[in-house]
Amino acid sequence: MIIIMSSSATREQVDNVERKLSELGFKTHPIFGDIKTVIGAIGDKRLLNTQLISNMPGVENLVPIMKPYKLAGKELKQTPTIIEIGDVKIGGDELVVMAGPCAIENEANFLETAVKVKEAGAKILRGGAFKPRTSPYAFQGLEEDGLKIMAAAREATGLKIVTEVVDTRDVELVSSYTDIIQIGARNMQNFRLLQEAGSTQKPVLLKRGLSATIEEWLMAAEYIIAAGNKDVILCERGIRTFETATRNTLDLSAIPVVKEASHLPIVIDPSHATGAWKYVAPLAKGAIATGADGLIIEVHPDPANALCDGPQSLRPSKFAQLMKELEPIAMAVGKKI
Amino acid sequence: MIIIMSSSATREQVDNVERKLSELGFKTHPIFGDIKTVIGAIGDKRLLNTQLISNMPGVENLVPIMKPYKLAGKELKQTPTIIEIGDVKIGGDELVVMAGPCAIENEANFLETAVKVKEAGAKILRGGAFKPRTSPYAFQGLEEDGLKIMAAAREATGLKIVTEVVDTRDVELVSSYTDIIQIGARNMQNFRLLQEAGSTQKPVLLKRGLSATIEEWLMAAEYIIAAGNKDVILCERGIRTFETATRNTLDLSAIPVVKEASHLPIVIDPSHATGAWKYVAPLAKGAIATGADGLIIEVHPDPANALCDGPQSLRPSKFAQLMKELEPIAMAVGKKI
Amino acid sequence: MIIIMSSSATREQVDNVERKLSELGFKTHPIFGDIKTVIGAIGDKRLLNTQLISNMPGVENLVPIMKPYKLAGKELKQTPTIIEIGDVKIGGDELVVMAGPCAIENEANFLETAVKVKEAGAKILRGGAFKPRTSPYAFQGLEEDGLKIMAAAREATGLKIVTEVVDTRDVELVSSYTDIIQIGARNMQNFRLLQEAGSTQKPVLLKRGLSATIEEWLMAAEYIIAAGNKDVILCERGIRTFETATRNTLDLSAIPVVKEASHLPIVIDPSHATGAWKYVAPLAKGAIATGADGLIIEVHPDPANALCDGPQSLRPSKFAQLMKELEPIAMAVGKKI
Amino acid sequence: MIIIMSSSATREQVDNVERKLSELGFKTHPIFGDIKTVIGAIGDKRLLNTQLISNMPGVENLVPIMKPYKLAGKELKQTPTIIEIGDVKIGGDELVVMAGPCAIENEANFLETAVKVKEAGAKILRGGAFKPRTSPYAFQGLEEDGLKIMAAAREATGLKIVTEVVDTRDVELVSSYTDIIQIGARNMQNFRLLQEAGSTQKPVLLKRGLSATIEEWLMAAEYIIAAGNKDVILCERGIRTFETATRNTLDLSAIPVVKEASHLPIVIDPSHATGAWKYVAPLAKGAIATGADGLIIEVHPDPANALCDGPQSLRPSKFAQLMKELEPIAMAVGKKI
Repeated sequence: MIIIMSSSATREQVDNVERKLSELGFKTHPIFGDIKTVIGAIGDKRLLNTQLISNMPGVENLVPIMKPYKLAGKELKQTPTIIEIGDVKIGGDELVVMAGPCAIENEANFLETAVKVKEAGAKILRGGAFKPRTSPYAFQGLEEDGLKIMAAAREATGLKIVTEVVDTRDVELVSSYTDIIQIGARNMQNFRLLQEAGSTQKPVLLKRGLSATIEEWLMAAEYIIAAGNKDVILCERGIRTFETATRNTLDLSAIPVVKEASHLPIVIDPSHATGAWKYVAPLAKGAIATGADGLIIEVHPDPANALCDGPQSLRPSKFAQLMKELEPIAMAVGKKI
Repeated sequence: MIIIMSSSATREQVDNVERKLSELGFKTHPIFGDIKTVIGAIGDKRLLNTQLISNMPGVENLVPIMKPYKLAGKELKQTPTIIEIGDVKIGGDELVVMAGPCAIENEANFLETAVKVKEAGAKILRGGAFKPRTSPYAFQGLEEDGLKIMAAAREATGLKIVTEVVDTRDVELVSSYTDIIQIGARNMQNFRLLQEAGSTQKPVLLKRGLSATIEEWLMAAEYIIAAGNKDVILCERGIRTFETATRNTLDLSAIPVVKEASHLPIVIDPSHATGAWKYVAPLAKGAIATGADGLIIEVHPDPANALCDGPQSLRPSKFAQLMKELEPIAMAVGKKI
Repeated sequence: MIIIMSSSATREQVDNVERKLSELGFKTHPIFGDIKTVIGAIGDKRLLNTQLISNMPGVENLVPIMKPYKLAGKELKQTPTIIEIGDVKIGGDELVVMAGPCAIENEANFLETAVKVKEAGAKILRGGAFKPRTSPYAFQGLEEDGLKIMAAAREATGLKIVTEVVDTRDVELVSSYTDIIQIGARNMQNFRLLQEAGSTQKPVLLKRGLSATIEEWLMAAEYIIAAGNKDVILCERGIRTFETATRNTLDLSAIPVVKEASHLPIVIDPSHATGAWKYVAPLAKGAIATGADGLIIEVHPDPANALCDGPQSLRPSKFAQLMKELEPIAMAVGKKI
Repeated sequence: MIIIMSSSATREQVDNVERKLSELGFKTHPIFGDIKTVIGAIGDKRLLNTQLISNMPGVENLVPIMKPYKLAGKELKQTPTIIEIGDVKIGGDELVVMAGPCAIENEANFLETAVKVKEAGAKILRGGAFKPRTSPYAFQGLEEDGLKIMAAAREATGLKIVTEVVDTRDVELVSSYTDIIQIGARNMQNFRLLQEAGSTQKPVLLKRGLSATIEEWLMAAEYIIAAGNKDVILCERGIRTFETATRNTLDLSAIPVVKEASHLPIVIDPSHATGAWKYVAPLAKGAIATGADGLIIEVHPDPANALCDGPQSLRPSKFAQLMKELEPIAMAVGKKI
């Protein structure tokens, strides 16, 4: 940690900061410049309430040297985390595609989709039973009935399932049905929900918040891991910018940044990012070429009549075609699909 | 609602959209341009899953004519909502200032602050018992012990109290202690928490999400009101932009925009928006002059040793001085403080 | 064009708007809803100062039906524009890679880079002679001497050259040397510079502004085309967001959006977008897989001693390796490189 | 300057960085932590191409201690700059209001506005003769004829005048007519235009770019001052965010941030920031209360027929009323208007 003193800081203020740092167990190294003094402090900032220092008189700024996350970062674990769910492995050489409708509407419809995405090569079936909708008047999901339909589709197809939880009170219920618990973008900093998901044994798919930095996203993963659950899958789904041609701006540069900073796998959701089915295929290809560990894609047998997110859903036939087109790209970057 | 057909839409596609709209109870008015056709549809879009239309072949775009919120907007209620908490009224001619520390640390400290902010003219005492912290290693609040300290300070000073709730499971507990329930920026779209807060009888201070549009913020208020609680106080606390000189960018234009679109009161939080105590006073003044109904300001007797948000906290003496300086500005815009 | 009248608009105000539209040559179609009236207006909005309508009493909003650009869009030209510079074609089946240093530093250095990027497969040599630097104290470029060095490198290698112009007064000079004129991100809305570049016969590489929407970018292209130069190459180079892990956020979704809206070719600049050489290769691959028509990449023989943008520059050997790795990805999307 | 070495940096790499810094005239102070090494370097970073260091092997990051601007900052000049234009002073106790139409349309109209804004208390008359329009088909201004009309209005009223220049080739012409040269938001990083404006003797009103940080804005001012013109007036006019209820987001926190970092005066443009006349008055009041040195406001005698920016223009009567309402707010913050 580096403490930058303001140009008007007195020698006494510098001494006070050094004394405080010593009390807190840091070794200090002041550097006296012509205009400003800076103090290097050696020790683990994460154990410290840094504001005890940053609020002291004469302190201008505090520059962290180490990242704020420990468990989600590479300091303690350099090798990539591979998450195993039965025979499906996320984070290794084989790309994993999750597919299915935004919301579960009824059993027949959902099962039909499940069969088709499986045929096309998806390994995991997605579907929403608890839906976080921006309008209180919109369809909110089938809740436990939806979970039962998912479980039945898993039974019928052998696919693993992933579904979202939106309330701490439902974590136990949802995790009793699902193979992967999804935390949605709007709940990325719902810290209690993170902790609750962290107390289960199920892998967690953690979507990046709409305006979350990658560091904050990794800190949200840190919450889950610190609560005891090391199986976190990061999911980039678009961030909010001024651009309006797409619903959000898909940040594919998050892939190499995450790979540099963390050992956790990262998958991409081009459906929510763009909000338009016609942009899904090109960005799915781009995501794989950039190095993603997988994709999560909305597929609906009849997008025109979907209760949710129809405009961004692919028909099963388009999805099957996309899966074929992804194959040579996966190969080109040393992966299988 | 206006449906814009793409330039390549066929006459049959136009007819199909018209037929579907009729089935859904809309009256339709097609307008045939040289290149594109648009269809005007009269009826209440809010009762409709608009995707049933936007997904139809040939449809390019759908332009809503009415706002998506009903209860939070001015369509059904033009007069400003004034929220009464005992003798404190929020939304009327008298500005309401809420003040106190980020987190409740101990009873003596908190009571000292309470007494001082009351002397300075604050009407409501703020304090955090459940803290949503970006790091799992940071101080998370005293929880129910904190609520008890708040209640004791209310007892001692007569101030009303406001505190945040971060988990649906705690809403009942928190509302049994507090006068105003706060929903923080990171939970603005935690819809279950909104609904739970909406089921209580306590006014709700709803902070704007870090990257929420004003329309989404009003939709979050709609959730609370639709759940049965009409007493929502909007709180602008800065939005996320590329600027780094302040923690967030305080959007004071939200004040006249909200006043135009809604009957709900709006208060401003310059402490969280800027993250720096030295910017709090000028922006508090700016907020009042722009037409805010009140302020929420962090005050701590010893910012250098605060467990949370010290850098943005005013000392009680600075706060008292600010309250004095706000008086003539309040008068200039026809308000009292 | 659709005119939405406010809910309080009088019948007289509606009539006035209709009358004004008729005077301006529009055919009008009013639709009277229960709460609001909307007026459909048929005619070419682009010929109209729309504010003459939007400012009229009772008008709430004006919704354009047609895009504001004509020449850059697909309305008048559906087939992709292929720009030919000698035997290099941009916008067709063969991907075009432009490579070279940020700034031209000296002849030997530049020629060495030129030879190496040519060997690796680049078709166009980039280099900066006039540099737009954020600091007045930074190296501003060799100016005409730099252009001469570029021309010599073209002579020696047969590569085409692209270089930036930053001042209307230099357009003639720059276009007398270069094969492609570059307009930088910071000048995307320097309309006089666009017009001046539009008056030359040289293709223009138009970088997207740091906070420009895709529509504004196409309007900037419209300026160039309207001035008489139809050969515009769009270049996405990252937009400004709150994320700080990369210098800007590369918006690869701009590729399919541009392909949908325009006939112009689009190339991607991963070097400026990320600001870090280690992120360049993965995003170059992602760009090609997403459908880009080419890339522009910074290459420097000795990044550690580059006068400009060293941290984002690839060494020639890394660049050569990347070019090889791009081949199978290009093939996977039906292109050659 | 602090150099942070990566955790994998070798001792040799640390030594090399120290050696290079010494060669460049810096005194170095290495601090060896358990995981990372940092090197403090004393000397003037601004004289250095910092990339010579940041590109060296083993270097992770470089943290500047000093601001990149010198002349625009407070290091060399702590007292506020007061710019005198005849008897008008900008930056002192008296607030300065600039008012007038977006574009100069004809002499009669402009003169009428001039007379009225003067009566209301404006000191400076604004008007556009060269207009930077996003569409090549929009009205581009009367050019020199517009300047002549402005000069005539100055003659008739005694008001000072401010107008924009958009092309380096017009700087001499514009400065021969105007009292203040305006550099628009889209040209904030048109560095040649900044230099050219810096070579005149006329004060420069420098608008903040749509997505410019305050630091970049001050660096743009640095360009002007470094070119020999110390009279720069900063103008905040809204930044680009995701919010769509206003055209841009007015960043009033820029006022105290600029006052902290710079000696230059700052004025606020609520008209362009909001794009809606009804939001202009509340934000003008907010700006004054926050500490602005002045305002620039669009006023048009007949907004419904304005050729440019009508929706955000105040009628002269509304402007006169606003000027009265600003008086007590100015007084409350110790200023006159």
